[in-house]
Amino acid sequence: MKAEIITIGDELLIGQVVDTNSAFIARELNKAGITVFQITTVSDSREHILTALREASQRVKTVLITGGLGPTKDDITKTTLAEYTNDRLVTHAETLRRIEAMMLARNMTMNPLNRTQAEVPEHAVVIPNSCGTAPGMWIEKDGVRYISMPGVPFEMKTMMENEILPRLQQINTDVVIHRTLLVYGIPESALALQIAQWEDRLPATIQLAYLPASGTIRLRLSATGSDRNILENQVEKAIDEVRPLLGKNLLSVDIEQVEALAGQLLINHQKTIATAESCTGGNIARLITSIAGSSRYFKGAVVAYDNEVKCNVLKVNQQDIETHGAVSREVVEQMAQNVRTLLETDYGIATSGIAGPGGGTAEKPVGTVWVAVADASQTVSALFHFGNNRENNILRATNAAFNMLFERMQK
Amino acid sequence: MKAEIITIGDELLIGQVVDTNSAFIARELNKAGITVFQITTVSDSREHILTALREASQRVKTVLITGGLGPTKDDITKTTLAEYTNDRLVTHAETLRRIEAMMLARNMTMNPLNRTQAEVPEHAVVIPNSCGTAPGMWIEKDGVRYISMPGVPFEMKTMMENEILPRLQQINTDVVIHRTLLVYGIPESALALQIAQWEDRLPATIQLAYLPASGTIRLRLSATGSDRNILENQVEKAIDEVRPLLGKNLLSVDIEQVEALAGQLLINHQKTIATAESCTGGNIARLITSIAGSSRYFKGAVVAYDNEVKCNVLKVNQQDIETHGAVSREVVEQMAQNVRTLLETDYGIATSGIAGPGGGTAEKPVGTVWVAVADASQTVSALFHFGNNRENNILRATNAAFNMLFERMQK
Repeated sequence: MKAEIITIGDELLIGQVVDTNSAFIARELNKAGITVFQITTVSDSREHILTALREASQRVKTVLITGGLGPTKDDITKTTLAEYTNDRLVTHAETLRRIEAMMLARNMTMNPLNRTQAEVPEHAVVIPNSCGTAPGMWIEKDGVRYISMPGVPFEMKTMMENEILPRLQQINTDVVIHRTLLVYGIPESALALQIAQWEDRLPATIQLAYLPASGTIRLRLSATGSDRNILENQVEKAIDEVRPLLGKNLLSVDIEQVEALAGQLLINHQKTIATAESCTGGNIARLITSIAGSSRYFKGAVVAYDNEVKCNVLKVNQQDIETHGAVSREVVEQMAQNVRTLLETDYGIATSGIAGPGGGTAEKPVGTVWVAVADASQTVSALFHFGNNRENNILRATNAAFNMLFERMQK
Repeated sequence: MKAEIITIGDELLIGQVVDTNSAFIARELNKAGITVFQITTVSDSREHILTALREASQRVKTVLITGGLGPTKDDITKTTLAEYTNDRLVTHAETLRRIEAMMLARNMTMNPLNRTQAEVPEHAVVIPNSCGTAPGMWIEKDGVRYISMPGVPFEMKTMMENEILPRLQQINTDVVIHRTLLVYGIPESALALQIAQWEDRLPATIQLAYLPASGTIRLRLSATGSDRNILENQVEKAIDEVRPLLGKNLLSVDIEQVEALAGQLLINHQKTIATAESCTGGNIARLITSIAGSSRYFKGAVVAYDNEVKCNVLKVNQQDIETHGAVSREVVEQMAQNVRTLLETDYGIATSGIAGPGGGTAEKPVGTVWVAVADASQTVSALFHFGNNRENNILRATNAAFNMLFERMQK
């Protein structure tokens, strides 16, 4: 079963908003065995939306649409869908009651625009929106189903999970399996050569893809067919065969995010962690706490951006900062050790580097980063030379810190 | 001048990677007066890429392409572009030398896959990649220009800024102006009604869009035409007229990110800041430090996820935690005050809440968040009730904290 995604909104075409919705929808559809053939982003324009709907309907039988359902004038998806399906808008009594109850609960007064939110094409199946005012719509026309959802990410996500996927799963029988190996510390081309023979021998049902991101590479195996058992066995066998070729560069099978892997390892080992961050500015803590339940293993962080904070809060020896600089083995090791003591955790991880664009010197250019991991018995540190890009330096330092933690925990 | 963007990669269609590239490209093109008509995401499939190129060429004369230029077998953009333009691949001597020098500098050995990276269609203009091995390509065919860039974001960004935009700016004469008002603390439908009459009176050259995101709304005015002066005056006039209607809900004109606005205010007032974060887990610090030069005003943060850290590091009164709970006015105010004292800054901002999905009670359900801002003279705090979504609760708490800082700084 194939589907397409159409995301609607001028904000996407002028680059003001990054389209995270289609990635989420695509991921969920794939899990349900539905292949996404194409994602098309179009403007809040009646003609453009009509063309996109028509073109998608010539390629697939399922079209998921997000955006353009808001109460304001630039939101025209609903009227355009009604036009496309030769339907008229009518007030959906149940939705109107839901919106009224929602406004009441939020101590807000109902206004005329809220009321128009309850209008839907007469022949649409209304999909309730448990997080917001705009309802979803499921419309069938000439053998093609059009599913319209709000563009606000968490409203769309909740609707997708609770309403849309269960309905699609009843229709679809194809199987698509994706499994991902998280690899660290080897360049993409070297990795490709290292596993070339294995890749050549993969069965035709399995596709391989390389996804590099700031020091990590996600190696994805995708199998498509009709028999889940056969596909699962094929993929499992392929993974077993590639494991020895990847060695210690393989961080994980099936856990794609370093922060999720850290969480699982810490839970398994019943250990706690704290971070002391300079150049990563809280990014490691933010990633760790993005995982639900992270309070089981994460106690906190000290973001020591300023050297005074390194000395006063983390008790780094001021003389060491003066002698070696803040970006040095001496300082980053003390940061890791001292945050561990201060926050009373099993592990402490620390970063100190020059993210850029300013602050570089001939000796320590932008991209120079020290990372340390400390536990009760030992402190390990390493020096990295990343690049000139601030954002990428923060991400690479973050990934390096997680990787050093994994190495330490596996010893 | 109109353009389209084609992003290539199975990882985008299975939702493994969020396409941030097209937003960046669209933003840069818009700044240069080039309108993006459509963004199309297709798979690493020869036929699908050929179809997408053909279809885009029927709508616009400029097609920007990212992805599929890596050294591995799943990357087929280059060979497909050569096929599309009836060209053959040849080794580009200068690129080969550049790649060799790059490998040498990184202490890496050249492998056969690195060598194929230097191959390009014979009639392509080669665009140097200063951050990676894959070169960009500029190909003209039947009056349409195809510009192919790597999919790795920072490689693409650098190439776009240094090489592609200067060339496009020499070709384009159209003017597109976008200006954005950052609004906080008013629901979208209420805002729309509040400014309805103003919106109705906007000149036909100006388009208005509402972009809500976790408590903030970006109100974007876009003007299109040929005379920059006229457009600029029209937009300026419209902004002047809407200001009094927005009142204190208007946070800023032209600065779209709360973290950038915070940076500018702190620099203007010559003040420093620190954060004490519980439920936001370092997200505020991470955003502040994403801005280059933030070390001028940001000294650091204490992420006090665990109550012990609130007591031991931030010196919150343990009795208050026991009596009122960690998510309380008493605790969040002490966090804001004490991080300010501990890190010796002018302002301290603090968050304490229940992000979810676990941890809620009848009295304090998931989404309950206290935020406080302290300076030398006063501490202000406020209670929020957000929703059930962890990610959104973190984002809304973050925006609420920034907004309280702005209110405090403007007094």
